[in-house]
Amino acid sequence: MASTLYRLHTHLWRARNQSLFPAVIGARWMSNSQSPLSDIQHGRLEINKTSTPKKLPALETLKFGHNFTDHMLVIPWNSSQGWGTPEIKPYGPLSLDPSSTVFHYAQCIFEGLKAYRNKKGKVTLFRPDLNMARMNLSAHRLALPTFNGAAFLDLIKELVRLERHWIPQENGHSLYIRPVMIGTQNTIGISPPDSALLFVICSPVGPYYPDGFKPVALHGTTEYVRAYPGGTGAYKIGANYAPGVFPQKQAAKSGYVQNLWLSGPEHNLTEVGTMNLFVVFRQEDGTLELVTPPLDGMILPGVTRDSILSLARSHAAGTLRLPNLTSKLVISERGVTMKEVCDAVQSGRLVEMFGAGTAAIVSPINRIGYQGKDIEIPVEDNGMGPVSRPIWADLVARQTGEVESDWSVVVYEE
Amino acid sequence: MASTLYRLHTHLWRARNQSLFPAVIGARWMSNSQSPLSDIQHGRLEINKTSTPKKLPALETLKFGHNFTDHMLVIPWNSSQGWGTPEIKPYGPLSLDPSSTVFHYAQCIFEGLKAYRNKKGKVTLFRPDLNMARMNLSAHRLALPTFNGAAFLDLIKELVRLERHWIPQENGHSLYIRPVMIGTQNTIGISPPDSALLFVICSPVGPYYPDGFKPVALHGTTEYVRAYPGGTGAYKIGANYAPGVFPQKQAAKSGYVQNLWLSGPEHNLTEVGTMNLFVVFRQEDGTLELVTPPLDGMILPGVTRDSILSLARSHAAGTLRLPNLTSKLVISERGVTMKEVCDAVQSGRLVEMFGAGTAAIVSPINRIGYQGKDIEIPVEDNGMGPVSRPIWADLVARQTGEVESDWSVVVYEE
Repeated sequence: MASTLYRLHTHLWRARNQSLFPAVIGARWMSNSQSPLSDIQHGRLEINKTSTPKKLPALETLKFGHNFTDHMLVIPWNSSQGWGTPEIKPYGPLSLDPSSTVFHYAQCIFEGLKAYRNKKGKVTLFRPDLNMARMNLSAHRLALPTFNGAAFLDLIKELVRLERHWIPQENGHSLYIRPVMIGTQNTIGISPPDSALLFVICSPVGPYYPDGFKPVALHGTTEYVRAYPGGTGAYKIGANYAPGVFPQKQAAKSGYVQNLWLSGPEHNLTEVGTMNLFVVFRQEDGTLELVTPPLDGMILPGVTRDSILSLARSHAAGTLRLPNLTSKLVISERGVTMKEVCDAVQSGRLVEMFGAGTAAIVSPINRIGYQGKDIEIPVEDNGMGPVSRPIWADLVARQTGEVESDWSVVVYEE
Repeated sequence: MASTLYRLHTHLWRARNQSLFPAVIGARWMSNSQSPLSDIQHGRLEINKTSTPKKLPALETLKFGHNFTDHMLVIPWNSSQGWGTPEIKPYGPLSLDPSSTVFHYAQCIFEGLKAYRNKKGKVTLFRPDLNMARMNLSAHRLALPTFNGAAFLDLIKELVRLERHWIPQENGHSLYIRPVMIGTQNTIGISPPDSALLFVICSPVGPYYPDGFKPVALHGTTEYVRAYPGGTGAYKIGANYAPGVFPQKQAAKSGYVQNLWLSGPEHNLTEVGTMNLFVVFRQEDGTLELVTPPLDGMILPGVTRDSILSLARSHAAGTLRLPNLTSKLVISERGVTMKEVCDAVQSGRLVEMFGAGTAAIVSPINRIGYQGKDIEIPVEDNGMGPVSRPIWADLVARQTGEVESDWSVVVYEE
């Protein structure tokens, strides 16, 4: 019975997300869909509240990912019983055997999503189903256990409700939620782990650009790559992140903020730092083309990426009106090479470039260092471009609940 | 003064290993060689012995990497003070904040080496300087702190001396030593960590093939890659390992033991599972050519790989005589494609193939599943081939101290 329900859930889940992650939702992303083991069960939740709640940090002191709330959610898994008792308990250290595989072989995956609280105290999450689906894909790719995403999401909601006083209500503020899964098998051999731990911690965060949008300069990176065909670039796994720190340091030494990750002999643009990438070209007839690289296995299927594409497509189809965007708009998921970017800058047809991700939402780009030269990318006075600004405004309004949206999932209402 | 000594040490260390890791020892592998921070210091070691020593496991129950000794070595680092007090203390769990970067971003590197104890009680390590040099390269690549490799090695020797009764004296047995470094910064942002932990655990191990050599069947893998130009394949970092588990599971489902990692449109052979790869071809005139892929940035600079090349070259040069190897031998570090392997099998010129690594030492290959067909690789009755067997025998004799060698470093003598 449990297994039948699980399979049904799997099918629904897959159908729901198929259109959003077409390149990565394959035939078998729920590896244990026929498993007789226990899945995550909301009903088994145990809550142990802290007796020493922390003082809430002053908003102006918030630094991204430096403050954590009073509690965390932990759910253990092992290969003989499946998912164990979920527990919300005081935020505190994990005690792990030094042989745990996460320390040796990078058996770790994560997600990042935000909870918003409006002035009336309503708490919402933004498209959390996508994070659940993507985390299952990541788990499957690393041979970590998959899980019932809906049940895990229900538990995350419990944690967010308990911590809702931690969510700042001010503009641009939110609670950053970080689900993580690690392999905890206590042997040095490399295999699918026989035990794992899923946990969630929360961090109140302020606006990524507290003083208004600040365009960033990128280093067009050719000596290091972020991803490659047959690799893991499409998954949100720890292993995609550690190798990027050194190249970022090198870029910073040369005066650039982030890496523009290029790929292949044609120097195809892939991602920027840890964000997805968008480029806007003006075509001969004045049409604006919003371009982002396709989900070809090297690109992370970002929730912000998908949301931007979806809003832009609705505008282009006439079902949504983005203010001040009067030019005709077409949307392309296609490859873009550095040659195309350089040519478009030269001929004045490059309109804007920006990164997109959960942390910064939209991050405008004003310069690319490439093969010893600096290429200036247009930015408007207010720090964004003609396409990114209306999309960003609409997206933020949906995220915060200011504009009604199916994407906004209510967690709590007073 | 400390800094001058440190720089001197760095230069010596680099000079010593330059010939061994030519492709990866670059200009700046000691990132903090001018650092004013404390380096690892043997003289600061604190030893806290366990009051409840474990019972030594029965040799026949040993499973690779499942048993750990009574103590571990831990050395903390932070960005304001550098390396702190080294401590040998009872083996036990690490307590880490759930925001520690190792859990999120795979900030982890490791090494693997073995200690041997002969019948007279003499304890030796095999070429541990290479592990120290390689670990520093890995640390630098991940923006983790580098360290004085000689001082760290001295501390490892202290641990091995304390645990020497754990080292089985039987043939093919040893103590597997696992140094690990993890990033422990407690924030969700991605950057070079402001704190890290270096630790060493030890595991007594038996022969990899207790019942004699067992040749393995490989799946010639084209849908997943292990490494890529501009990637991290040349470094011993956790991020290279987690992504390989799922492809290995897939290979196992089809009846293969490990992945033969292929690369590029020509399907160049790179590595096998987590081992380096060797192929032996018979040339027209009867000369045997021992081939391994070059250290081009995609290949791990294995200590066993280097040792095999070195012994083979000495034999070819006439300075070492490997018994029963009477054919003329040439050694090549060059690319090998699947086409070359298939053609050589067809024409009877493929003599043998084997993997090489610290755990198994030499692992013969008898079959490759490639593009829907099975290619039979020759193996001799005793499970190895005419080149691998004498090299393996000589290598093992040097590792165990049966044959005198500069590579064997004495840790303890009764």
